Amino acid sequence: MRTVYLNGQFIAENDAKISIFDRGFMFADGIYEVTAVLGGKLVDAEPHLARLRRSLAELALVLPLDDDALLAVHRQLIARNALCEGLVYMQVSRGAADRDFLYPPADTPLTVALFTQDKAVLDSPLAKRGMNIIGLPDMRWGRSDIKTTQLLYACMTKEQAKARGADDAWLVKDGWVTEGTSNNAFIITRDGAVVTRELSRALLPGITRGALLALVQEHGLQLDERAFTLEEVKNAAEAFVTSSTSFIYPVVTLNGQPIGDGTPGPLTQRLRRLYIDHALAGSV
Amino acid sequence: MRTVYLNGQFIAENDAKISIFDRGFMFADGIYEVTAVLGGKLVDAEPHLARLRRSLAELALVLPLDDDALLAVHRQLIARNALCEGLVYMQVSRGAADRDFLYPPADTPLTVALFTQDKAVLDSPLAKRGMNIIGLPDMRWGRSDIKTTQLLYACMTKEQAKARGADDAWLVKDGWVTEGTSNNAFIITRDGAVVTRELSRALLPGITRGALLALVQEHGLQLDERAFTLEEVKNAAEAFVTSSTSFIYPVVTLNGQPIGDGTPGPLTQRLRRLYIDHALAGSV
Repeated sequence: MRTVYLNGQFIAENDAKISIFDRGFMFADGIYEVTAVLGGKLVDAEPHLARLRRSLAELALVLPLDDDALLAVHRQLIARNALCEGLVYMQVSRGAADRDFLYPPADTPLTVALFTQDKAVLDSPLAKRGMNIIGLPDMRWGRSDIKTTQLLYACMTKEQAKARGADDAWLVKDGWVTEGTSNNAFIITRDGAVVTRELSRALLPGITRGALLALVQEHGLQLDERAFTLEEVKNAAEAFVTSSTSFIYPVVTLNGQPIGDGTPGPLTQRLRRLYIDHALAGSV
Repeated sequence: MRTVYLNGQFIAENDAKISIFDRGFMFADGIYEVTAVLGGKLVDAEPHLARLRRSLAELALVLPLDDDALLAVHRQLIARNALCEGLVYMQVSRGAADRDFLYPPADTPLTVALFTQDKAVLDSPLAKRGMNIIGLPDMRWGRSDIKTTQLLYACMTKEQAKARGADDAWLVKDGWVTEGTSNNAFIITRDGAVVTRELSRALLPGITRGALLALVQEHGLQLDERAFTLEEVKNAAEAFVTSSTSFIYPVVTLNGQPIGDGTPGPLTQRLRRLYIDHALAGSV
């Protein structure tokens, strides 16, 4: 039985209840963050908190907890659950109020919920065998850059991928890949350029994406921030995804066809090691 | 203190709690319906239940309650809360499970929550004075025909309308009006045609919209189901919205400019009376 955090209290997970009138439940009026934990410490904590602030601001949510307080809650949860490797999930909603599309009075307390999950981050099976992905249309709303809980389409597409024997889907809008269902999409071209789509309202500014791009440049690798098509994925030397709790997973097939030789690519594996070194060195 | 329904029980609203692990809270993985109540009876109950079934099917949710059971819960709530006029809200989510984009095992109990709200439906101030609307971009996901709880953008746009001194917004995609934030959009042209957008994935198949279209044809009025632009709204003779709990509200200004003479139009008012007669006659 995990201990979770809800609105100022550390309680048993089975006791962590919110009102059916919570706007997170009725309107998806809320945002979230997921931070990886390695050796009991938080990975890339600072950029995660910065992105949380940005999400809060986009939704005009005013959270009465500063970064130190949030970090302290994260650490308490890690300690109370003796979490070594996995993640801390944090969600903030606009709180409970009688149902109305208009926001409730500004003094309505937000709902703040955090919990931990065990997960093998470093020794992950998918990191070794690589992911099989399919292409699906991106039908999400126009602000996929905000990390909101409007995740139904991501769930539906991941289910669809599973039904077709794949691990995940890459989403395509107007002919261009935006991102994965819960990760950023990368290819490595046959001349060694690391390609990922430039930031916009169409995709999430991934924390791992950002850290990896810095590493790519630091190590003198060629970086090309631009949109690409599924046709380019098919013809790429390698492909991979980044996310906060998978770090980097190779992508080895698209719609059943091998990418490169159909095994995790060497540069992808090198980038995964580089990111793991960064994560271990910077965890707090 | 209202009595609400949650997962088989009628309880005080303050006791109606769900897990923070509910997928309705974490993923907006749920759907809803809102049915008007007049004189303690449900308006257009049958098409609301039919649309609920369609929403459930789109999300692959299997609800172990048949229409009679759902109607009985609605009626119990109306009785226990002595509701004369207002609405019954019903939400179904995929239930609580440890967080994973993939759906939980099929035997995971769905969350079913219903509650009532008092509302002056017949004697509504907005029906008399008419609504002031603004045009805003439609940035919702590509399946706005499914009545999911992914309503954040509707909330944001309604807030934006309020901040600009308006009552609501009409959403525009690729130059064409799709619908209002929580209602279907209609204009009446200068030659008397009732115009509303044809159904597609871009808009909700409104129950009131459907009933009104039948009334329009029954009364020999000209009906034109097609998309229209904000320019056409500006030049229309009248405009109005339909929704389950507003029935028909005139729209009297767009972006601060009067539509027609800037007062509720005569045909709009006639259609509202026709719909009210239909609602009263068919309520159960």
